[in-house]
Parts: sequence; C-alpha cells; structure tokens
Amino acid sequence: MAGGPSTPELAIAVCEAGALGFLAAGYKRADALRDEIRSVRESTQAPFGVNVFVPAPAPADPGGLHEYIKRLKAEADGQGAELGEPRFDDDDWDAKLEVIYEERPAVVSFTFGCPDAAVVNRLHGIEIAAWVTVTNVAEALAAREAGADGLAVQGTEAGGHRGGFVDDGSDESGIGLLALLRLVARATSLPLVAAGGISDGAALAAVLCAGASAGAVGTALMLAPEAGTAEAQRALLAERRPTRITRAFTGRPARGIVNRFMEEHSGVAPVGYPEIHHVTSPLRAAARRQGDADAFNLWAGQAHELVQPRPAGEIVREMAAEARAVLDRVSAALHDRGTSAGRH
Amino acid sequence: MAGGPSTPELAIAVCEAGALGFLAAGYKRADALRDEIRSVRESTQAPFGVNVFVPAPAPADPGGLHEYIKRLKAEADGQGAELGEPRFDDDDWDAKLEVIYEERPAVVSFTFGCPDAAVVNRLHGIEIAAWVTVTNVAEALAAREAGADGLAVQGTEAGGHRGGFVDDGSDESGIGLLALLRLVARATSLPLVAAGGISDGAALAAVLCAGASAGAVGTALMLAPEAGTAEAQRALLAERRPTRITRAFTGRPARGIVNRFMEEHSGVAPVGYPEIHHVTSPLRAAARRQGDADAFNLWAGQAHELVQPRPAGEIVREMAAEARAVLDRVSAALHDRGTSAGRH
Repeated sequence: MAGGPSTPELAIAVCEAGALGFLAAGYKRADALRDEIRSVRESTQAPFGVNVFVPAPAPADPGGLHEYIKRLKAEADGQGAELGEPRFDDDDWDAKLEVIYEERPAVVSFTFGCPDAAVVNRLHGIEIAAWVTVTNVAEALAAREAGADGLAVQGTEAGGHRGGFVDDGSDESGIGLLALLRLVARATSLPLVAAGGISDGAALAAVLCAGASAGAVGTALMLAPEAGTAEAQRALLAERRPTRITRAFTGRPARGIVNRFMEEHSGVAPVGYPEIHHVTSPLRAAARRQGDADAFNLWAGQAHELVQPRPAGEIVREMAAEARAVLDRVSAALHDRGTSAGRH
Repeated sequence: MAGGPSTPELAIAVCEAGALGFLAAGYKRADALRDEIRSVRESTQAPFGVNVFVPAPAPADPGGLHEYIKRLKAEADGQGAELGEPRFDDDDWDAKLEVIYEERPAVVSFTFGCPDAAVVNRLHGIEIAAWVTVTNVAEALAAREAGADGLAVQGTEAGGHRGGFVDDGSDESGIGLLALLRLVARATSLPLVAAGGISDGAALAAVLCAGASAGAVGTALMLAPEAGTAEAQRALLAERRPTRITRAFTGRPARGIVNRFMEEHSGVAPVGYPEIHHVTSPLRAAARRQGDADAFNLWAGQAHELVQPRPAGEIVREMAAEARAVLDRVSAALHDRGTSAGRH
C-alpha cells in the first residue's frame, strides 16, 4: 500500500498481532526506507517484509503521453494546482536494494516485474526471502525460474496497482483470485500468498483451502488508526461504491473506487508509468489536502465496503480466529452431509 | 451451459453422482425443454434443476445494431454462410414457465434478470425453489425482495454469459467470486451457490468457506463425454489460453477463450441481446460444423485449462471427496500453527 496507507506503525501493529507486517518502499527514497525499517525494528522483534517496485523497462510513448498531459492541464487549472514533470525513473531501485541488503528484512516482495536471478541470489546469500507478485501462470513460471521463494498471487479483486510484469495496454481486468490460485497451485509448488478482496476470516479460510499458505491483507487495514489513509478516502471506503481499474492516475492499471477523475480520464489514459504518476502527483496531493475525493486516487479492493475502523492488531487477530472457526464449521458440516453432499 | 454443452445425459450423470444436475432451458423451445425434463426423469429419481433466461426488457438500439450487422456481413461472406434475422424475442418465456409449472423440477434458476414476485409465488405454491443469478449486492437484494430461495453468485471467473440483470454497456468485467461471496453473504442470509472458476475440490472447499452452501460447476464438466461441447472447442479447453468478456457473439457480455472473431469484433460490438445472438447463430453453427474454432464462441471460465476429459460422475465424486480432504488438512494445519499463525 505504497503512497500513504502503509506506515511503520501499521507494520508494527500487524507484526505484534502475529502476522507478517510489510513496509511499502514504492515512491520513497532509499534513505526514507532505511528510516522506516529502523523504526519498525525499534518497536518489534518480529520478522517483517518490504515491498519494492521493479522499474519499468522503457519510457512511455511520448505522443500518447503528450496528449494526456494536455488534457490534464485543464484539470490542473480547474483545481488551481500544478502538474508534475513526466519523469521516467527507476524509483531509486539500486539504492533501495542496497538498503535492503544492509538492513535485511525477513522478506522482500516485488511488484511490477521480476527481479533478475542476480538480485534473487544476493538476497538468498543473506537469508532474505524473495517473493514476486504475479497475476497469471506465465508470470508465476518466470518468477520460479528467477529463483523466487514464494509468489504473491494477486487476483482481480485487489485494490491499488495491478502487480503484473508488463502493462500491455489491454483493458482486461485480470483473473479472479480463486481461479488464479488454482491455476498457479497446479503449475508450481512454490508457497503462495493470496491477495485481493480478503476482508475477513471466511475469505482467509477460503484462500487457504484454494492453495495459499497465507493471505495478504490491504484494504481491510485501511481504516485502522495506524494506517496513513487520507481522510477523504476513509469517509468513502465503508460505503457500497463500485470500483474499477484505471490508468488515469498513474499510467498503470490500478483498482479504486469510481470517482469523477476516473470517469473523465480513464477512457483515454495511455500506458505511461511512472511518467503519469509524476505528472498527477501534485494534483492528487492538492486534492487530498482539500478533501476532494473526486480528484485523487481512491485505491480499494472489490470488498472494500466490509472494511472496519478498528486497530490493526484487532483486525488481524480476529481474522485468524474467524478463519479457524470457519474451517472447523465447514469441515464438520461436510462430514455430516456424508455421501449425500451436494444433493440438498 | 445453454447452447450445446448441457444435455440430459450430463444432468443425469451429475444427479447420479449425488449432486444437483441442471438442464439449460435457454435458446430452446418449451416443448424441447419438456422432452429433456422427461428424459432426465426416466433415468434418475434424484432431484434436478432447470436454468431459464429472463427476457430482455426492451429491444436493442437499431442504429448500433445496423452498423454491427453490416460488419458481420463481411464475416459471413468470408465463410460462405448467411446471417440470421435480428429478432427481438422472449426466448419462449411464458411457455417455458408453463412447462416448469407442470413438470415441477426441484429448482428453477434464473439468469439475465429477476422474475417478478408473481412467478416466484407460483413456483413456491408448487414447491419449486427459485434461485436467481446475481453478480453484485444490489442484484442480491432485489432477488431477495422478489422472494428468491437462493442466489447463484456469479464471479467474474465464470465462463459463458454474465448473468446480471442489465447490460449497461460498460466494459467492467465484474467482481471476483471470493469478494462477491463475502459481500453477498454479509448483505443477505439467503443460501448461496457459488459460480465461476470452480475447477476442483480445493476450489469447492474454498467457496464453502467463503459462505456458499454449494458450488456450481460448468466449464469443469465440458470435456465429459456426456457434455455436448463442440469438438473444435474440446481441443482447446485444456490449453493455457486467455479468456475475455465480449459482446461480439451475442450482444451480451460473455466470457470465452480469445479467438479471431472475438479480437476482430469485441471493440465495436454493441449492447444487443438477443438480436445479435440470432444474427450470428447460423455463422456460429457453420463454424462449429467446419471445426473452425476462430469463428464461434468458445465459452469457458478462467480456470478452463484445469478441465479433465473424464465422465461427469467421476468429476463430481472426486471434487466432493477432495473438498473434504482439503478442509480436513487446512483445518488441522491451522490448529497446529496455534497462535503463531501467519508469522511463518
């Protein structure tokens, strides 16, 4: 949950509740990441992870970018805000890896691509587990080839950016988590962490049955006091509102609650990450400050209306306890039904 | 699985294996439905269901329809086939309901809309359960209001037509099954039948944990000898091929394996069911006869590559047994992990 919601406080609360807290390295400078890692270490002895964005392979097509920026200029004028520079960068990739090699979190998960085998080998040499976010079977096989220790399997339900390796410009919104888990589980024996729409213990129990070793939770923690979620977004998360996938805010497909900005620009927004991210960044920051939920990205998974405004530790503990209870109940009910299962 | 794969033989095999077999009433005349119901009754004493298409509320926009038909004319010429008439009809709705009232299957499930309370009440009066296919929470609440006894909860993973009430022309592909089950389960206490991408016992166990009382299986049965699946489609179902949702074949969104017809026409196909269904019907029949898998609809769910060419009864029995085994294993593993769940 890069870009706001993830905080050291949230990671600490999750770790202390017995789960694996994560820090988001995306959009941050390497030295800020180092500070966050140290701040988590000061407050918990539990293992934790860091999520890193893999750099895009090449800059965006300048023509499409130029057209879209012209359009956003009107949006910026309307808000009295400036646009940022359409900068192509690698999100401080090398420097962040150096911080990770030095600070040694238990796990590093990668999003937007697969690190090469040299990076994975270096992580292995210092006992850091490498997880790769995948959205289809081909990516899962490529990650295994690169030496990944585990796969974060991201279903279409997930809020925020689609974590796949390339944005091919298609409008397909991806494979549902349940089908994707079965496809990936049958294609590789790597441990799987399920991500996308996991809102409660019943959903966690479900992904464990579908082949995951763990569930990753994002949106479900966004109303926790420890999360850095913008106030204007908090007000909408628990409402029944549709989400969709859009490139409008960052140039890369991401799922959020539908708002004006998304409706006006999604149809024409080109493939262009990270350039468009940098262009809209000041606009979005201004909208957040002004509490204008129609003008910034409201990242949220498809089950967002089930989110609860409770401390992160409570959410994590209750989810684990409920998952156990659900598994016991369903298992007992199925045995009671005996050989007539499915008939009634 | 209207339009071919569903057969009385398939329903019988599923019933005899201890599950609830279904007949597809869609696209059939009422008298053909009656014959199928009687044929199932002759071979099994088990209860079974019938799936019915709810008629569209109004004809398609003539302008968009006209443009699309012009385009399809070239396709038809290339294949040496004729186009059908862009007929608006109700799929023999009233006559089929009469057959159902007389023949009394255990369950009638509705797709493409919600029957009004009068229909539901009449079904209840003769002890037929009414299920309604839903794709979001609003539809679930409307179905409950109409008196539905159960909801078929269709995730984006599902093959074939999206079963929602209206086609609003959007390109959104819907909510993943896992998130949708949690959303619907928290909004109503009606029994839920989960549909979409359920390919094996692990997936079945997962949806039971997520709140379903049963899982509906479609694609997973399409290679069974009892299914009426076209030969050219059988050859592709077990391959790793992407699916997408398209209006190109019928004018209503449906998921199938990507082929040439889909790639060429999806971008421009208008909202227009059942008119476009009737227009392309002779084209698709010709392509099926010729074994040209690039020119007809290859409906399939997102987990289609896991489908197995085995008798339907074996598939059903193994799925039930595997679901039990998975639940036992996951439940035991979670208890072993005790309070450290999630940490390792």
